[in-house]
Amino acid sequence: MGKRIGRQTLQFTEEITIRSFATVVGRKEAEGPLGPFYDYVFPDNLFGEDSWEKAEQKLQQYAVELALEKVKLEAQQLDYYLGGDLLNQIIATSYTARKIGVPFFGLYGACSSLVEAMILGSCLIDGGFADLLVACASSHHETAERQLRYPTEMGVQRTPTSQWTVTGSGAYLLGKHTGDWKITHAVPGKIIDREIKNNADMGSAMAAAAADTIITFAADTGMINQIDYVVTGDLGIVGYKLCQCLLQEKGIDLGERYSDCGMAVYHAEQQDVHAGGSGCGCSAIVLGTRYLTQLLKKKGEKLFLVGTGALLSPTTNLQGDSIPGIGHGILIEKV
Amino acid sequence: MGKRIGRQTLQFTEEITIRSFATVVGRKEAEGPLGPFYDYVFPDNLFGEDSWEKAEQKLQQYAVELALEKVKLEAQQLDYYLGGDLLNQIIATSYTARKIGVPFFGLYGACSSLVEAMILGSCLIDGGFADLLVACASSHHETAERQLRYPTEMGVQRTPTSQWTVTGSGAYLLGKHTGDWKITHAVPGKIIDREIKNNADMGSAMAAAAADTIITFAADTGMINQIDYVVTGDLGIVGYKLCQCLLQEKGIDLGERYSDCGMAVYHAEQQDVHAGGSGCGCSAIVLGTRYLTQLLKKKGEKLFLVGTGALLSPTTNLQGDSIPGIGHGILIEKV
Repeated sequence: MGKRIGRQTLQFTEEITIRSFATVVGRKEAEGPLGPFYDYVFPDNLFGEDSWEKAEQKLQQYAVELALEKVKLEAQQLDYYLGGDLLNQIIATSYTARKIGVPFFGLYGACSSLVEAMILGSCLIDGGFADLLVACASSHHETAERQLRYPTEMGVQRTPTSQWTVTGSGAYLLGKHTGDWKITHAVPGKIIDREIKNNADMGSAMAAAAADTIITFAADTGMINQIDYVVTGDLGIVGYKLCQCLLQEKGIDLGERYSDCGMAVYHAEQQDVHAGGSGCGCSAIVLGTRYLTQLLKKKGEKLFLVGTGALLSPTTNLQGDSIPGIGHGILIEKV
Repeated sequence: MGKRIGRQTLQFTEEITIRSFATVVGRKEAEGPLGPFYDYVFPDNLFGEDSWEKAEQKLQQYAVELALEKVKLEAQQLDYYLGGDLLNQIIATSYTARKIGVPFFGLYGACSSLVEAMILGSCLIDGGFADLLVACASSHHETAERQLRYPTEMGVQRTPTSQWTVTGSGAYLLGKHTGDWKITHAVPGKIIDREIKNNADMGSAMAAAAADTIITFAADTGMINQIDYVVTGDLGIVGYKLCQCLLQEKGIDLGERYSDCGMAVYHAEQQDVHAGGSGCGCSAIVLGTRYLTQLLKKKGEKLFLVGTGALLSPTTNLQGDSIPGIGHGILIEKV
């Protein structure tokens, strides 16, 4: 039986583990600082398909298949597929679930979708409803930009607060008892809306939600000083600084223990990405490579990841309404 | 601890109950056969707002507030808000979650979203992660038609297989031990795609997924003959007949025990809705009124509801790809 701590934090009783994961990316991501760590690189953003949407679906499928292959498991052994992406009707995820062929929970949390899937997946395992499942998310630069802002062919000038939507997917196999990392706590996030209406400034739209989740976790558990890495999903440089200020206002100074996947995925200057990376794929590819593989080395080291989502609707944004933000948090410990 | 039965069925150990529910609809729905049973009727499809999207958000908010009011509870007492709608980025739901202000899991299962929310919500309660939460879904005729097919102002001729997207929302408060109905089992659905590409024939796109979930439930539990009402979400007349044939092929003849929310929501002939009603709001408003209130009267009576979703993406549909279907099932029993 799961336990609840304080206002909003969940603690798992079973040893929920990450049994395996895989990351699949595009060329630009492969040229970034984490290039050598990705499992598979697509040679271009179409990957032999005739649409970007089909290419995005393949990103997700490859990630799931590689994650399964690493631990010699088959898709049919999965109890569930949980995932989401940025496309309308999360169609890249739905088509991947069609291929995988197991019971499917479609989620929409924008760039928080991976962590949303990991939280619900952990609850399903802890509650006795599953032994093995996959949590997955993807994004694709061209599909996302066309849908949420402008088609890339228009060559619209990007503002300094803009982030570059990652072409990539990460799939995480969750199970019990076996695996190098365990998931011990989770903090499902609330919507926080600071009235940001600029669709080229997602970092600002999400920063307050990320900070709220970190502050809640700190208050609920009293564990914030034992966490080696506090990581936000894709706030980028602008959102990172904002989140840092909001935390400091509450007396939480994480110093170098705080970092952001959006700032880790590209070489900021050379790759011309302005405020950093974003998209569901961003935290999905950085979590496994930079954090689980590179940094979490010693038994007991802890990472609190906040998947951050800017739930931007182009329709309501054009109607003058603001962009709600959400931050779902999960605590991962090296076994 | 939850129990798994057979291939895909979940059985809850705790007594998960529906503590309360509320339905809010538009004028056309109020003129249908269930008119007297709805909790609140919007006088028109804008309801004093300047966009249909804002009106849809209000539908959901009113449904949640009324459901809480009926049992004298406050929004702050909710552990979670789970829900979805048909809009891109499920924005009606996100904005409602912003108002409600509790931790939020955004879901996308098209018209299966309510049952998807009820399944995950039941798992969260059974697993010890929640005591009280709300599962909610909405749709709005004008927002959905504009986004998924043609703006209603165009007056495009509707084909006989078309269904009418319901303007309505239903919110269901799930808790433990107290309530007139309990949720005892669930069958999370798989994606089934029969290569249907006609965006004006959602019933055919979903029928096979609905049948698959009913067949799985029958095989897993052996309980299909004890079920008083087997109900699909919004297959409409075309999908209903198809589903019936698919069930009969597997030796399951439900006769009059099988009905469909899409066929119950309007007066088919007089209201000019062609194949019936559809949309996330359809099963959400019919479940509470026709089934929980009107039909489930005797202690122990059982209803197996399959929320059916056609995960139609206009983008990939125009690219020539088909419409994946899903059916999430839940077993509700009169206490």
